[in-house]
Amino acid sequence: MKPLAIVGATVIDGTGRPPIPDAVLVVEGDRIKSVAPATETVMPDQANVIDAHGQYVIPGLMDANVHLYAGITPDLLLEFEGRYADLVVEAAQVALRAGLTTVFDTWGPLEPLTAVRDRINRGEIIGSRMFVAGQIIGFGGPLSYDFFSTSGTFGLDTVQRINRQWEQGVGSDLLWLTPEDVRLRVRDYIERSGIDFVKYAGCAHTNPLITFSAPAQQAIVEEAHRAGLTVQAHTMSVESLRMEIDAGADLLQHGDVTGPEPIPDATLKLIVTRRLPVAALVCTTRYMAWVRENGHELMRTIIHNETQEQNDRRLIEAGARLLLTTDGSTFGPRKLNHPQLASLWKGAVDFPLQLGRSHFLWLEAVIERGMAPMDALLSATLNIAEAYDVAAELGTLEPGKLADLVILDADPLEDVHNYRRIDAVMKEGVLVDREALPANRILS
Amino acid sequence: MKPLAIVGATVIDGTGRPPIPDAVLVVEGDRIKSVAPATETVMPDQANVIDAHGQYVIPGLMDANVHLYAGITPDLLLEFEGRYADLVVEAAQVALRAGLTTVFDTWGPLEPLTAVRDRINRGEIIGSRMFVAGQIIGFGGPLSYDFFSTSGTFGLDTVQRINRQWEQGVGSDLLWLTPEDVRLRVRDYIERSGIDFVKYAGCAHTNPLITFSAPAQQAIVEEAHRAGLTVQAHTMSVESLRMEIDAGADLLQHGDVTGPEPIPDATLKLIVTRRLPVAALVCTTRYMAWVRENGHELMRTIIHNETQEQNDRRLIEAGARLLLTTDGSTFGPRKLNHPQLASLWKGAVDFPLQLGRSHFLWLEAVIERGMAPMDALLSATLNIAEAYDVAAELGTLEPGKLADLVILDADPLEDVHNYRRIDAVMKEGVLVDREALPANRILS
Amino acid sequence: MKPLAIVGATVIDGTGRPPIPDAVLVVEGDRIKSVAPATETVMPDQANVIDAHGQYVIPGLMDANVHLYAGITPDLLLEFEGRYADLVVEAAQVALRAGLTTVFDTWGPLEPLTAVRDRINRGEIIGSRMFVAGQIIGFGGPLSYDFFSTSGTFGLDTVQRINRQWEQGVGSDLLWLTPEDVRLRVRDYIERSGIDFVKYAGCAHTNPLITFSAPAQQAIVEEAHRAGLTVQAHTMSVESLRMEIDAGADLLQHGDVTGPEPIPDATLKLIVTRRLPVAALVCTTRYMAWVRENGHELMRTIIHNETQEQNDRRLIEAGARLLLTTDGSTFGPRKLNHPQLASLWKGAVDFPLQLGRSHFLWLEAVIERGMAPMDALLSATLNIAEAYDVAAELGTLEPGKLADLVILDADPLEDVHNYRRIDAVMKEGVLVDREALPANRILS
Amino acid sequence: MKPLAIVGATVIDGTGRPPIPDAVLVVEGDRIKSVAPATETVMPDQANVIDAHGQYVIPGLMDANVHLYAGITPDLLLEFEGRYADLVVEAAQVALRAGLTTVFDTWGPLEPLTAVRDRINRGEIIGSRMFVAGQIIGFGGPLSYDFFSTSGTFGLDTVQRINRQWEQGVGSDLLWLTPEDVRLRVRDYIERSGIDFVKYAGCAHTNPLITFSAPAQQAIVEEAHRAGLTVQAHTMSVESLRMEIDAGADLLQHGDVTGPEPIPDATLKLIVTRRLPVAALVCTTRYMAWVRENGHELMRTIIHNETQEQNDRRLIEAGARLLLTTDGSTFGPRKLNHPQLASLWKGAVDFPLQLGRSHFLWLEAVIERGMAPMDALLSATLNIAEAYDVAAELGTLEPGKLADLVILDADPLEDVHNYRRIDAVMKEGVLVDREALPANRILS
Repeated sequence: MKPLAIVGATVIDGTGRPPIPDAVLVVEGDRIKSVAPATETVMPDQANVIDAHGQYVIPGLMDANVHLYAGITPDLLLEFEGRYADLVVEAAQVALRAGLTTVFDTWGPLEPLTAVRDRINRGEIIGSRMFVAGQIIGFGGPLSYDFFSTSGTFGLDTVQRINRQWEQGVGSDLLWLTPEDVRLRVRDYIERSGIDFVKYAGCAHTNPLITFSAPAQQAIVEEAHRAGLTVQAHTMSVESLRMEIDAGADLLQHGDVTGPEPIPDATLKLIVTRRLPVAALVCTTRYMAWVRENGHELMRTIIHNETQEQNDRRLIEAGARLLLTTDGSTFGPRKLNHPQLASLWKGAVDFPLQLGRSHFLWLEAVIERGMAPMDALLSATLNIAEAYDVAAELGTLEPGKLADLVILDADPLEDVHNYRRIDAVMKEGVLVDREALPANRILS
Repeated sequence: MKPLAIVGATVIDGTGRPPIPDAVLVVEGDRIKSVAPATETVMPDQANVIDAHGQYVIPGLMDANVHLYAGITPDLLLEFEGRYADLVVEAAQVALRAGLTTVFDTWGPLEPLTAVRDRINRGEIIGSRMFVAGQIIGFGGPLSYDFFSTSGTFGLDTVQRINRQWEQGVGSDLLWLTPEDVRLRVRDYIERSGIDFVKYAGCAHTNPLITFSAPAQQAIVEEAHRAGLTVQAHTMSVESLRMEIDAGADLLQHGDVTGPEPIPDATLKLIVTRRLPVAALVCTTRYMAWVRENGHELMRTIIHNETQEQNDRRLIEAGARLLLTTDGSTFGPRKLNHPQLASLWKGAVDFPLQLGRSHFLWLEAVIERGMAPMDALLSATLNIAEAYDVAAELGTLEPGKLADLVILDADPLEDVHNYRRIDAVMKEGVLVDREALPANRILS
Repeated sequence: MKPLAIVGATVIDGTGRPPIPDAVLVVEGDRIKSVAPATETVMPDQANVIDAHGQYVIPGLMDANVHLYAGITPDLLLEFEGRYADLVVEAAQVALRAGLTTVFDTWGPLEPLTAVRDRINRGEIIGSRMFVAGQIIGFGGPLSYDFFSTSGTFGLDTVQRINRQWEQGVGSDLLWLTPEDVRLRVRDYIERSGIDFVKYAGCAHTNPLITFSAPAQQAIVEEAHRAGLTVQAHTMSVESLRMEIDAGADLLQHGDVTGPEPIPDATLKLIVTRRLPVAALVCTTRYMAWVRENGHELMRTIIHNETQEQNDRRLIEAGARLLLTTDGSTFGPRKLNHPQLASLWKGAVDFPLQLGRSHFLWLEAVIERGMAPMDALLSATLNIAEAYDVAAELGTLEPGKLADLVILDADPLEDVHNYRRIDAVMKEGVLVDREALPANRILS
Repeated sequence: MKPLAIVGATVIDGTGRPPIPDAVLVVEGDRIKSVAPATETVMPDQANVIDAHGQYVIPGLMDANVHLYAGITPDLLLEFEGRYADLVVEAAQVALRAGLTTVFDTWGPLEPLTAVRDRINRGEIIGSRMFVAGQIIGFGGPLSYDFFSTSGTFGLDTVQRINRQWEQGVGSDLLWLTPEDVRLRVRDYIERSGIDFVKYAGCAHTNPLITFSAPAQQAIVEEAHRAGLTVQAHTMSVESLRMEIDAGADLLQHGDVTGPEPIPDATLKLIVTRRLPVAALVCTTRYMAWVRENGHELMRTIIHNETQEQNDRRLIEAGARLLLTTDGSTFGPRKLNHPQLASLWKGAVDFPLQLGRSHFLWLEAVIERGMAPMDALLSATLNIAEAYDVAAELGTLEPGKLADLVILDADPLEDVHNYRRIDAVMKEGVLVDREALPANRILS
């Protein structure tokens, strides 16, 4: 394969250094060969050339928290049983089409997720690069009280058969155990699951009850680190957040969500001084206003409330290391209109959970909250790569790294809305045929 | 194909005439050629011979009310979607194996039922001969308040998609219409559905609220008769029963179930003088005792209560024309243990709804209630054939009729439990390989 | 007591005759002595005089369907147990204050309602004159599936104790019975209850299932007439409406509500030719628009739908005898915000169920639908008195009738909003101290 | 008042020392003056004498965990609102009648409980001496998800009004707070509530989710001790139990209930070496067998399971300091038959939650598990007094202590069933008129 040169564009390489106007970025195979001003570049022989004058090249975008398997309502769980991978593929393609070359899937059915991840990595399917957590250790599956209780609509065997595909032996029964037994179960899960990083429940799904005691959390963190994996927790309260930090988590997943109580100063200070990455669910002002007026009680009082908004401002102001994180998944009429879920999102303005759009909204939202444009870009690229310990390969446009990049028609540092003006997406040196994605629309 | 002669057995031909000892029953092709004492029979040349000395031959048994599609819980409805026919086939085989050569399916998903019916009729599948009603006109589908309300577990589209496969345009919305509009909708359903008989809701599924007004019921009956079909209603109360009779129904489906109020004398008299066939859900004394002690409130107070027992006795004493009817369907652990249904049947003694066993229990129960042994046999054969207007082909062992018969090892008129001692089942002249049935066990 | 003369006003006497300008209306005791132009009146000696020049005197208004007991949520039912009468008194005062001198209570707890009625009639309490139906024969009580199912929150004894105060032996168990047994139970209820008129369920509360068969309805109607009482049915569908008419009902309660199916022409013709009073729940255009946009499914599709609006127009155009009817009751924050009921009414514009306001909205709504102003007044006065067979005493301003009247500051025939401009209310010759009503605010 | 001498009985003084045969126990006022063998006693002048030859005198019994307010179903909560104290009085009398001179109420409505306690202490009402915890800090009230969720049957204001009477400002919203804020709220509660000891939620009511983090638990314990009160936690799992011990709790409430996971050896060792009082819900073998066969899932798998039985045996064997604890409350048909609760207790053999009987069952059960007879008596007397820090006044029959005692007709150390053979109960020197208790039966 011949080398490929993108010439003429302003390259914002994601290192935080100033943009390089009239740059030449050379790709060889799946990696970046060089990035430099045209004046300093020797063009390779026989290179293919992409003329990008007037355009802007940025690293491929990342999302620190998505759920590619989106069919979590009981009817979809049953209808798509055996075909969950189809929905995952769809979502991975929706993501890639929208400029997300890498996503971190933080909860879902292990087998379909890892299978699709591997098929994408082997080049059998086109889609966003996936890193997968599988189960959130300590939660029940999708048909449990943690997510969607079905009030006896189904027989126990159906409920368990579905839930097991998520729980993988590290479900809510772990909460009964001693830290030592938790450790053994987690170790076993890590060894056989093929996951890329570890996520555990620091508290219940939508309330502040604590799942694992401090020693149990430590055991989980130690097992993750022992296996060379990063670890993060689901937290919803100031104490579960503090316990997660104490336990040694590498990344604070939606660390900006603390219910009605703002992040205490001491915790904020820890976050900043230790440079702990905070995957923050920052939402636009328009959405926050909609929630205040029309939102479901859960969203309005616990999650997307004034405390979260205030936490986001304080984190940005204090210079915390934020990560673009959306909780995004595919949506379609069936999920939007589901009788027990519709009140969570029907009619929302700037709805922040829709994969493919939500990362643009996140970038717009952090600018609204006062983040510097360059920091916003780093939040969506290098910060995430570092937090997930994959910065050796990903996150910036530097020689030797994988050639994941997005070509924009306008400057995203000048106007954050320009992230939407995607002209082309390249993943591992190959230009993505965005029009063809997703090949098979199911839920999107 | 060579003729076949069953020789030596006592033949109870189902006409009500005395048994023929040492008889010869000759089958040619799919029909009965002759039935007569050995002394009066000229054996055909080159006939295959079945030696049945000491055995008893009776017509193939029938059940006036079964539900071959049994997967009516929400999880089964979703899991087996697209494969409902598989469950129907299983049930049709369970029935045939147990001596039921013909069953009348009075509620279920139209398309799978008629498809399996047709495949069995064409000889592509082995199974009990099916006559199909499809929808009970006026009811909602299985995921409606008439059957299993799912409290918003599913989206509306899922609920409707499932229900439509039952409702077929003649669901509960008909209750809003004028009799004239009901007539048009029913006519259209009959014309395009390919059903064998008509069943409508005379009242709600488990309470005495009336569905159709008297003129609307008359319109339905007229449309059925206009198409040459028999018609029956689901009734649960003395008034809905009376209205059904007034409307001109041909068969009173579970006419012995009238809630807490016994059948009034005037109605009983009508039933007897008009010779109206009553498909009665007679249960054994042991089961009735179990229900009184342990039964679910619905069963205990509305259906299998003392009133029903009393109705059954009075009907038998008055010489009403009873039909064996069981409401039977296949059962397995998943349905038995379903959290919202288990209390209806878990632990029941002589449980009367299990296809393959329930017709034996019915025969035993009517004997307990005082029916003469020969009348019990007619209730399971000729009475049903006449009530459903198929007696020209079925219901007795007479020359010219289809060769459906059961060979028993002992005399069923002497001891009703002998119906269980099946040695062989023949359908349309072919001996059934009972061991091979059902080929595919799903729910049974 | 001295006679009292209202002088100078324009009297619209409610007979349908033209208004009498500069009239003198003389009251003696609790009755009207004379009504005539000033020029034709001889003033009594020593009369008290109310100067009403420039004002308009109309008969006391009536509502053909209210529910003075309003605390129908489970918490209120339990909290106010033993004190239901207090809520009834409050409502009767709210009604009187708003110009309703007579109301017909069509469903509620028998004992408190009749007790308050009697105390008002004896002059011990001030309030609107009440006529009481008590139970709707055939329905369960407020804590039954007909109204508010509590999903096992309460023990059976609590549920039954509350329900019995409504059901009075003529609850939903009647639906199991023969017409003859229904007749006996209804007769007994009428004899011992002290009710003023009879209401029975013609169909279920909010769906088209029929409660009583035609002969059972006839039995109820005959028993009511035998006792000299008028009779009406709750109906929701074209067939239940037709059956009610066939049974001989005197008044069609919300006869304009027929679900998705408009009143058939034949039924409309019957209504008009027989002069059957139709208590129609006519709502304002503004409310109907709100329901279309925001209404609860029940309201939007079954009750306050386009069919009802069309029925109302057709009834008015055809000259049917309409009655002001509102289903009105007292409301307050607790009922408005109740989690299971709020979606029925929260945020409604021109909300038609609030006693004290709803009758003004009704009058405005019929004018919007094309009714002549004088007919609107008759709908709220004489038509109701005649329909309930109390026109000998009530409904017009004619000599010999009870002196129930309202003095308005502006002409209600010129602008229907002028009904709201009440200056004074007189009941049985006594001016009501409106400011003092209701004395004890609980729910209003 | 003259002194009173009980003469001739065998006195088991509750100190653990051997019984004193033919003893004389002298009471002066409300206190014990002396206890000694007859031979060593100088009888006071003019004493009243109780001849107790052949009888056995033991200290008044105690229960370390009761709930005197028993009307926790929604209907009772609403019906008895404003009269909760009546139910508390009834229960305090049921307890006293059965020999419990002192009970520790560990959860209930603060105001009625403290009011009844004070009235009993002032001698205005006769009843068991009460020590009161009021709220379990961190739980919601009885109409919350922690206890009885009512699915929107009630308006929010009703739910909150009831719950506030329990929550007292230290409800489940505390779980959102930092330890420092928890501390302030708890301090405030202790200061204004008048409680006798502190109980907090160490985990959720019936699952292992942890409520308070370790520092928050420590803050609660410190605040209790700062106010001079003992403190205990509700725990259900091995980790919540360990955390409670680490936090410094004085008494482990139902420390033998650890779900499916037995108490770890390390924890058991801590309990024994630190002499931590364990209030264990020991049940009879007959009851445990019934639960295994028929019990509700919650009881069968989480609470009264084999793990608990094993924990009890190990605790006894290891010599842990057990306290008689029953969770007892009054029961009657309404609570027994409540549709959502009946499956917890209907039909139970040796049902362990019924106040007045359950303490006898407890004593029988510990003997079955291998406890020495004298230790069983101490578990019901001195151990509890010491654990709750009231042994200066209560728990033994020693000079100077309050004269609370029970006279039995047979030796309880010989046969544990003899605790049921109560002849007389004395509280503070006064013989209780047991026949008159409870004066007012509501639920019992």
